[in-house]
Amino acid sequence: MHIDHIGIAVANLDQAIRTYEIILNQKLIKTETVESEKVETAFFETGESKVELLGPTDASSVIQKFVDKKGEGIHHVAFEVYDIHKEMERLRGEGFTLLNEIPKQGADNKLVAFVHPKDNHGVLIELCQSQP
Amino acid sequence: MHIDHIGIAVANLDQAIRTYEIILNQKLIKTETVESEKVETAFFETGESKVELLGPTDASSVIQKFVDKKGEGIHHVAFEVYDIHKEMERLRGEGFTLLNEIPKQGADNKLVAFVHPKDNHGVLIELCQSQP
Repeated sequence: MHIDHIGIAVANLDQAIRTYEIILNQKLIKTETVESEKVETAFFETGESKVELLGPTDASSVIQKFVDKKGEGIHHVAFEVYDIHKEMERLRGEGFTLLNEIPKQGADNKLVAFVHPKDNHGVLIELCQSQP
Repeated sequence: MHIDHIGIAVANLDQAIRTYEIILNQKLIKTETVESEKVETAFFETGESKVELLGPTDASSVIQKFVDKKGEGIHHVAFEVYDIHKEMERLRGEGFTLLNEIPKQGADNKLVAFVHPKDNHGVLIELCQSQP
């Protein structure tokens, strides 16, 4: 299990891209909009993990709500798993609360599911599995 | 530049270790106390990055203050750099605020320095350099 990416919620994606291009000293790899979540994403490559900036596409976006409530900052950490269904079953069996009944389509061509932060000492954990 | 680790602030380190042993499906690698920071740390290996749990060793710890103010959760993300002095100089030149004048001794035998979260869209970024 390795860190696939960290997701950072930002108010203004274009501004954040410029900032992270400087911090990480590189150009971004790509942007991608996840319409169902009203989120626009931007990815940077940092070794085997990525930094994913998450900006709202409108005021009803979960990212806008997160930023309004908590301010900008780290939104989640994602771990790449080999078999997301098995991993969800394993964690459910251990008493963790999954926020998704079944995996859903995420950015970067992944199947994703989230584990409730209350079970993870305040950390929203994403499980993700690459698709062929 | 790759993610060396994510640091997670927790109220009770022993409880958090048990939780993360289950989530990450592995035993922790080591614990280490950083006396100067009043922090006890526990490390897990997740690919080339680590998960670092940070617990307070007393009530005056920065971690206790963080948990009291914001609750448990991700405290910082650390990027491994080749030459921390150069990287600090580069970022200062770009207008970023460094929280340390010079690198200090961190956990895991690293030289570390922090970049102010106000400059990084709410993310406390640690630069770290391995020492021989």
